[in-house]
Amino acid sequence: MANKAKKSGNPPTDYERIFHPQRLAIIGVSAEASGAGFGTGIFKSITAMAFAGEILPVNPKGGSIDGLNIFKSVEEIPGEIDFAIIAVAARFVPDVLDACRKKGAAGAEIISSGFSELGTDEGKELERRIKEIAAKGIRVVGPNCFGIYCPASGLTLLPGPDLSRESGPVAFIAQSGGMSIDFAHAGKWMGVRFSKMVSFGNGADLRETDLLRYFKDDPETRVISMYIEGIQNGDSFFKEIKTTASKKPVIVYKGGLSRAGARTVASHTASMGGSGTIWRSILKQANAVQVHDTEELAQTSLAFALLPPKTFSGISVIGGGGAIGVTACDTAEAYDIEIPPLADDLQARIYDYLPKPGSSAINPVDVANPFVPPQYLKEVLLAAAEDKRIELQIIVSLLYHYKSIAKTFNKTVAEITPYKELARVIREVADKTGKPVIAVLPNAKRGVDDLDIIEMIALTKKEYVDYGIPVFDELHDAIRTVAHVNTYYGGKNHE
Amino acid sequence: MANKAKKSGNPPTDYERIFHPQRLAIIGVSAEASGAGFGTGIFKSITAMAFAGEILPVNPKGGSIDGLNIFKSVEEIPGEIDFAIIAVAARFVPDVLDACRKKGAAGAEIISSGFSELGTDEGKELERRIKEIAAKGIRVVGPNCFGIYCPASGLTLLPGPDLSRESGPVAFIAQSGGMSIDFAHAGKWMGVRFSKMVSFGNGADLRETDLLRYFKDDPETRVISMYIEGIQNGDSFFKEIKTTASKKPVIVYKGGLSRAGARTVASHTASMGGSGTIWRSILKQANAVQVHDTEELAQTSLAFALLPPKTFSGISVIGGGGAIGVTACDTAEAYDIEIPPLADDLQARIYDYLPKPGSSAINPVDVANPFVPPQYLKEVLLAAAEDKRIELQIIVSLLYHYKSIAKTFNKTVAEITPYKELARVIREVADKTGKPVIAVLPNAKRGVDDLDIIEMIALTKKEYVDYGIPVFDELHDAIRTVAHVNTYYGGKNHE
Repeated sequence: MANKAKKSGNPPTDYERIFHPQRLAIIGVSAEASGAGFGTGIFKSITAMAFAGEILPVNPKGGSIDGLNIFKSVEEIPGEIDFAIIAVAARFVPDVLDACRKKGAAGAEIISSGFSELGTDEGKELERRIKEIAAKGIRVVGPNCFGIYCPASGLTLLPGPDLSRESGPVAFIAQSGGMSIDFAHAGKWMGVRFSKMVSFGNGADLRETDLLRYFKDDPETRVISMYIEGIQNGDSFFKEIKTTASKKPVIVYKGGLSRAGARTVASHTASMGGSGTIWRSILKQANAVQVHDTEELAQTSLAFALLPPKTFSGISVIGGGGAIGVTACDTAEAYDIEIPPLADDLQARIYDYLPKPGSSAINPVDVANPFVPPQYLKEVLLAAAEDKRIELQIIVSLLYHYKSIAKTFNKTVAEITPYKELARVIREVADKTGKPVIAVLPNAKRGVDDLDIIEMIALTKKEYVDYGIPVFDELHDAIRTVAHVNTYYGGKNHE
Repeated sequence: MANKAKKSGNPPTDYERIFHPQRLAIIGVSAEASGAGFGTGIFKSITAMAFAGEILPVNPKGGSIDGLNIFKSVEEIPGEIDFAIIAVAARFVPDVLDACRKKGAAGAEIISSGFSELGTDEGKELERRIKEIAAKGIRVVGPNCFGIYCPASGLTLLPGPDLSRESGPVAFIAQSGGMSIDFAHAGKWMGVRFSKMVSFGNGADLRETDLLRYFKDDPETRVISMYIEGIQNGDSFFKEIKTTASKKPVIVYKGGLSRAGARTVASHTASMGGSGTIWRSILKQANAVQVHDTEELAQTSLAFALLPPKTFSGISVIGGGGAIGVTACDTAEAYDIEIPPLADDLQARIYDYLPKPGSSAINPVDVANPFVPPQYLKEVLLAAAEDKRIELQIIVSLLYHYKSIAKTFNKTVAEITPYKELARVIREVADKTGKPVIAVLPNAKRGVDDLDIIEMIALTKKEYVDYGIPVFDELHDAIRTVAHVNTYYGGKNHE
């Protein structure tokens, strides 16, 4: 890698100061009531996140914001800075970056755009200068990015004042800022908790390979999730992803595999795509997990974060409505997962707890209606777990049907639905049996007449997430994540 | 078909009296305050739907419900009945059915379970008797089903008091009651409007082939959507689906293609599955559209209902965030749809309306941020439509970002988001250009902190649905439905 060679004389990157800066300069923050650009936006976001360190806003016009003095230049800041967020017009970026370097910053993120992604000579020249300065000893995230999100320190992405401050095991790397912010938001309600997230945009300096190398050894990171548009150096990336995937799961969504997609990648983040066949083969060789859209990326990250590190060849599916069982079987078989009929004695025990007629205790277990009490479902789950072939359980709850009985009891749907008890028994069963339970919460009622159901489902999901139960909207998605986990831990390339 | 031969002496089925009964008997309705079974449930659902005809409740114990006298037997009802809903214990069903036949009913739906799906001799014998009675001249839907939903008459499925009374072009056929009720509910907020829906459960009499034949010639039905677990007579089904698909689109989700799935089908609705390869080939030969899950079924039904009957080989994608464009290209290419770069002059016109830098006018058009005013987006859509290669447009709006600016303006997210104007301009563009516009409304914020966003998105969706704009949650799904439309209208087997 060109950058690495150039950097050989520099000290190793101080990622600690980048992700957990004590003194953070934000350049391009406007004083109160003088308009609001990206710099002010990121300042307000970081303030809203209750960032732990000292914030040092900078703007040539000076003034103040939220009671903080705005320095007129980086040079004016007394003492060293650890990290800088640069949000000034592209043409000013190189000088500001160099000033940050001289102030001792370990790194800077440049959220400004107007560089090589424009395809203009001017844009390319500005980006070349950024690389030159980076090579002198400051690591750069960006330009044309949404920056870093680190729940532990409170660094957040460009429009991210409301991201979670709860840390977790998933690191996320992407060029695309939009993808990153969406993933961060989705993670919040889906239950994916992040160690760190880096949206590196054009990737003038820090890119996929450097970040993989860092996260490989980062003790706060157990799962690495990536959205890749293009990469700069295929050989070193392949080497790095292979080494990394031997230590922890790496999940990759590679965009821009089509011809038109590759063209769009070029205008989006100024990098090169690659063919689908090559990528499939590279990722397979590396034992990285390939996914095909952002939802699958988030779901798979959740599964790797919450499931124990092993394969699950046999599963049970407990749910209401026979068609769910049919879907379960079709999906499981497509992913090479067994849904074995339970042992006869267990079937008999389970059948005792189910409404009749209309139920089936075979596996999938059809609980016939959505109102089976959580305590009965607990017994069903406990019994099914006794079958040695069952290594993981999935419970599908059609809770939206509770609305139909809420009126009868003169309660709201959130009051009538025993979601708290359900979450508790699921957690109890998983702990007691040592076999993970995945929850599925489909919702067929999502219109303006059913906002109360949507709220109840959101509350339920939060309850599950708080208990560390993996929860998905659709059964198919749940089974697919298990398949990904199987592929990774069934592969040979991991410790 | 066995039934057909047996029925040869009977008059043709009077579907009019089945779907739009004037006089409807419901057998198994309990008097007030004496407990509530399925019969009472369906009675209350049909009342809630403001069913247009006369309801005649029946229960040997008599009494009254909602001011209606409960007849002690079917025989006691004065005059003829058109249709009956039977919800009594399985062992009483044959006699009740025969009584309905003698009362002149054209048909009956049996929502009771406890028949061949149990696999017991008694269950099978009871179902054999149902067939015998049906063959004497009453058409039977069920047993073990959720019945018929017909928005025009107000007949509704078992737990369906809140389905839409708005009729539309989509007929739905399924064995599974759970699948049917979910599809009916999802259709309500997704914008799928139904002509008729039949959940036929065990299918002792009326089944997929008869219903296909009926819907083929039903003037109220333009699109037929099916969930099939098993079929009874492959030859006649194949013949019928081929003829039907030559007249109108038939969309099929075949469940139970796996070995385990086939086993589950057997216990769910007592019918036979079949191999995936055979089904794929049969459906392809018939030019029926095969889909692979319920969401895809609903989405594809929506597209066929709202898009003009033609193929769309070139599309534009307008949206915010470059990664959306990459996803668009990858997905489109996988489905053999072109996203051609727009003509230079159109690109220049479009670029004038976009924020800079960060936007791209090529196609996909990257609008850079989610706050581009609807009037500008209208100009963008109008310009893109002038390119002859563009036959359909997709607009992706990341409206959830409006929450971040709502506070600044001291408004709620629903107040600040210009969703009404957006819906109006989309409709205007589609009408003016003659090129359909599909809307995509992703939502990355779906947690308990963002219920206001969920509500705003639901309101937006309703606005789009009211304007007849096809709207989806995810871009991938939108493109896939276009691919299905292309497959059908590009196929040779349609008029």
